[in-house]
Amino acid sequence: MGFEPSGSRPVILDSDPGVDDALAIMLALGSPELEVLGICTVSGNVPLDTGTGNALKVLALLGRNEIPVYPGAGGPIRKEAVYATEVHGPEGLGDSALPMPCRSTSGDAVSFIVETLRARPGEVTLIAVGPLTNLALAEARAPGVLKKAREVCAMGGAVDEPGNVTPVAEFNFFADPDAARRVVRSGAKITLAPLDVTHRVALEGSQLARMPATHAGRFVKEAVRPAMELAMRLQAGPRFFLHDPLAVGLAIDPSFFRIETVFADVETEGDLTAGQVVADRRAFRADGDRTGLPVRCALDVDAGRFMALFLSRVFSEAV
Amino acid sequence: MGFEPSGSRPVILDSDPGVDDALAIMLALGSPELEVLGICTVSGNVPLDTGTGNALKVLALLGRNEIPVYPGAGGPIRKEAVYATEVHGPEGLGDSALPMPCRSTSGDAVSFIVETLRARPGEVTLIAVGPLTNLALAEARAPGVLKKAREVCAMGGAVDEPGNVTPVAEFNFFADPDAARRVVRSGAKITLAPLDVTHRVALEGSQLARMPATHAGRFVKEAVRPAMELAMRLQAGPRFFLHDPLAVGLAIDPSFFRIETVFADVETEGDLTAGQVVADRRAFRADGDRTGLPVRCALDVDAGRFMALFLSRVFSEAV
Amino acid sequence: MGFEPSGSRPVILDSDPGVDDALAIMLALGSPELEVLGICTVSGNVPLDTGTGNALKVLALLGRNEIPVYPGAGGPIRKEAVYATEVHGPEGLGDSALPMPCRSTSGDAVSFIVETLRARPGEVTLIAVGPLTNLALAEARAPGVLKKAREVCAMGGAVDEPGNVTPVAEFNFFADPDAARRVVRSGAKITLAPLDVTHRVALEGSQLARMPATHAGRFVKEAVRPAMELAMRLQAGPRFFLHDPLAVGLAIDPSFFRIETVFADVETEGDLTAGQVVADRRAFRADGDRTGLPVRCALDVDAGRFMALFLSRVFSEAV
Amino acid sequence: MGFEPSGSRPVILDSDPGVDDALAIMLALGSPELEVLGICTVSGNVPLDTGTGNALKVLALLGRNEIPVYPGAGGPIRKEAVYATEVHGPEGLGDSALPMPCRSTSGDAVSFIVETLRARPGEVTLIAVGPLTNLALAEARAPGVLKKAREVCAMGGAVDEPGNVTPVAEFNFFADPDAARRVVRSGAKITLAPLDVTHRVALEGSQLARMPATHAGRFVKEAVRPAMELAMRLQAGPRFFLHDPLAVGLAIDPSFFRIETVFADVETEGDLTAGQVVADRRAFRADGDRTGLPVRCALDVDAGRFMALFLSRVFSEAV
Repeated sequence: MGFEPSGSRPVILDSDPGVDDALAIMLALGSPELEVLGICTVSGNVPLDTGTGNALKVLALLGRNEIPVYPGAGGPIRKEAVYATEVHGPEGLGDSALPMPCRSTSGDAVSFIVETLRARPGEVTLIAVGPLTNLALAEARAPGVLKKAREVCAMGGAVDEPGNVTPVAEFNFFADPDAARRVVRSGAKITLAPLDVTHRVALEGSQLARMPATHAGRFVKEAVRPAMELAMRLQAGPRFFLHDPLAVGLAIDPSFFRIETVFADVETEGDLTAGQVVADRRAFRADGDRTGLPVRCALDVDAGRFMALFLSRVFSEAV
Repeated sequence: MGFEPSGSRPVILDSDPGVDDALAIMLALGSPELEVLGICTVSGNVPLDTGTGNALKVLALLGRNEIPVYPGAGGPIRKEAVYATEVHGPEGLGDSALPMPCRSTSGDAVSFIVETLRARPGEVTLIAVGPLTNLALAEARAPGVLKKAREVCAMGGAVDEPGNVTPVAEFNFFADPDAARRVVRSGAKITLAPLDVTHRVALEGSQLARMPATHAGRFVKEAVRPAMELAMRLQAGPRFFLHDPLAVGLAIDPSFFRIETVFADVETEGDLTAGQVVADRRAFRADGDRTGLPVRCALDVDAGRFMALFLSRVFSEAV
Repeated sequence: MGFEPSGSRPVILDSDPGVDDALAIMLALGSPELEVLGICTVSGNVPLDTGTGNALKVLALLGRNEIPVYPGAGGPIRKEAVYATEVHGPEGLGDSALPMPCRSTSGDAVSFIVETLRARPGEVTLIAVGPLTNLALAEARAPGVLKKAREVCAMGGAVDEPGNVTPVAEFNFFADPDAARRVVRSGAKITLAPLDVTHRVALEGSQLARMPATHAGRFVKEAVRPAMELAMRLQAGPRFFLHDPLAVGLAIDPSFFRIETVFADVETEGDLTAGQVVADRRAFRADGDRTGLPVRCALDVDAGRFMALFLSRVFSEAV
Repeated sequence: MGFEPSGSRPVILDSDPGVDDALAIMLALGSPELEVLGICTVSGNVPLDTGTGNALKVLALLGRNEIPVYPGAGGPIRKEAVYATEVHGPEGLGDSALPMPCRSTSGDAVSFIVETLRARPGEVTLIAVGPLTNLALAEARAPGVLKKAREVCAMGGAVDEPGNVTPVAEFNFFADPDAARRVVRSGAKITLAPLDVTHRVALEGSQLARMPATHAGRFVKEAVRPAMELAMRLQAGPRFFLHDPLAVGLAIDPSFFRIETVFADVETEGDLTAGQVVADRRAFRADGDRTGLPVRCALDVDAGRFMALFLSRVFSEAV
């Protein structure tokens, strides 16, 4: 596959690493279509400092220490932080034990996002795979700034499918519903990878057994182990869903997906429904009578084709 | 069809008439399986007094003035009343013009419900086709009383389908979410006829044209006209959904329906989601990890068979 | 003291007995200015059935078994019931041990209220000394009915003083904020006895020691004992506040009080402020710019004069 | 008055200029006790850009263009922005017409706050005279960072007095209740100048007439005019309350004030009470049973002595 920097798309990857975040970083950095300007971190799967360290570790594993890392929000806008350490392990990268590299971070995520979008209006894609706190804080600081993104590709929400934290809410949106609402209402061009697609693409146990004996292969095998065991207990079988890499996939090539523009908003208050994507799926309504704003939602995915891309990019011979 | 009073099931019909409420009353009184102990009224499609008058009018049309009518709640528990006069017409019975009979009502709905359930524990089925305010007030007055009902068959909510008032809420549950939550949480044996089934059974315009030239036939033809016109504007075609009669159908013969026990609760607070049935439809969850209480939900219906019953009962030669 | 039935004012006493409720009943029945049409009970200080039994016990103590008792709401409109058994003892009447008389109750409180107000518009005073659930349910059933009361005299809320359950909420309003809001917004003529006055009138420990050796005297001495001990722990000293009797006092003779018309409403949603009386006490505002509705609030009381009346009425020689 | 830089206290002034913000800037820069490290701006009295411009204008008027200005949040964390242009005029500085200087701002307020507090832990006082959004965003970005401030002196809230926007809420807390709660709950050492003191110190109309004929004197005279006219309509008389300068006064010399430590929190949800300081003022409570966190609240002020200081600092001969 020819690498063509001049044709690559500049992206900021905002993440809460996290095992599948690590895979998203690996996919993004292994994909010549994308030029990763920096990795922002946010409280989510794990506390901010843990996640920031994990971003640094994964970059070191990939030999990409030149990619700057920007720590962002240490917790959601309003509610108390919730973590997903039962999925990602207490340190956030499962059973892996990557060394912490000797390097430092590069400044604040929210400032980096605001300044980058202002400097290059219409050019930069935000790939957000954690709670949307950093993006919302950017919008709070500089109302309208998210509209300067070429696109916001976010892993989050559940449109026609159930949630994973509550019956109706997915983790990233549940963790900071206020942020999710602010981003959805920002008027930016948003494309979601909700559970509707992320529950359709998974590393199977059998695939893990065939991981290449590279650093990357060993890392993945060890990182996903606790999540696979949890998936067994949750009646999902021995598989690891590629939630976050799918949002990277949206930025690489949307043709993997069936994308539908859905009018949607995010509930922030309900005691049962906080974090829910409220999509207006009514068939019977007056023409033009819609609740919410138009959001592009990936509702189906060519899982086989995406998985082939994912494996080829993440387990290329280089690492 | 042989009428066998000794084998009929005692029911209280709680309603907010309303056109389809009128059809539900007609179906209930035309069905030998049911013994209608009384009709309770509640604020809903129309204000309480209008609805109470409509119940009296329909009973007079049917020659059943001996059925007692009990006015109940004049508005929802907490929120402001919302009506559905754009569906049911300003007087609630469409373009029909039934005369008001000279009779009076029989006391308070909530007292009637409480006293009847207490007097005949385990025997009486509540058929509720309006907002659940009366039932909730009965439970507020006498905690546990709804568990004395043989069954609560309620038209309301939307489980796997969109709502009709908001993207996620159906009218009866939206009109009084606090009442719906209280009933769902009461521990009573509840069977819902949600939009999932009520949007599958409709009088078509062509059927209306063939209405019998009886009093009942003329009444129905005139009553449903404004709602049919609205359905056209709402892109639903020239049809009138038999929402409320389906809850009566649950009491007559549940075999019309595919009924599934769903763990569910009702959102009361969300600014986008108030009145939503929050059903726990997660496939991936720990065994036994459920949100909500078990509610029997009709999720599919044999529309043809039900419609045949409906027509035969409502347009029998007697009226 | 001459008893003059023709001049007495008809009242319904709605209560959640409760020790001070018992004293309120004793004061009302000992006051010739009032004709007690019935005693309604509501969940509040104790569960409904306990409180209903206590009403019957106190009436028996007073030899007034002819007064009908109407059980009402078994819990608040929306939230879970909270009780005050640490004040009133597990059975609600402190350390007293009155026998349960052999008599029954007389029907439903809400119906009794609605029917009485309808039958005698403008004549009947509601004295409400518990959560306002019954009154709110009456208003839900029959919107506008509370305006038919001559006056609603309620013990509840805190206007310029702190609360007693939370920093800003008094027990009765906290127990059912939705009910309190509904009553305040009903447009009825409401006069409140808030903590601003009820914290100024208390039976002192020294007075208890001088209780007359009558049935009533012994009952009061035993009934208030746990509450007095709690008051010590709460740094209020050995005293028993006459919360509920003060609402009866409003109906007997408002001249005991300094009453001010305050624009007020009730918060129902805040996680810190549910049940708070939100009084508009702003000095700096445009003329006519007010939040809330006008509510007559007793803000000061001639404690000595009221106490003299209370003692003379409750400990008359008759009992 | 001897200026002693080595003894001055480093402060960051976070503001939403606004007329009284301008006076706060003037007081801070005229006070040798304080070393103003920078002025942060936030959406509040006026939109962010307007307020930032006003900060620049006032600095230019004072000949202090070397003070850096850091624009911060363009709106509150969660709710929609509300402004107070009826007080401050559409451009935020009343009827004044200061020229916009030719200089630029210096980076992001939130980053400046976080970095300054981290670099000089325990040294820097934050004086916040607008909505607390910037401080809350700093805490969201870096949980615990506000505890690194020597003190947070904030104009905001109403403790024992009514509010000014609603019956119970003051403008700054009302404008961003979520931010106010976050700051109060941060564990930082907070001292409030609530309406309890700020409504006690005002420039009177007669004082305005005697303003010195300096640039500063003319500016103040013109700037406060619309607010004074509004105060007349709000029945407050011809006066201009020195809300924001009082928070600067807390940093200059707390001995102007009677400061009491009050347990307090901030309501964020109530539809009547959002933004209210919920202070636990209960006399009757178990020892140690408190709601909220300890907050130092200025509840009284030596108005004459503060006013003398204010006038001498703001209208020194230099400007």
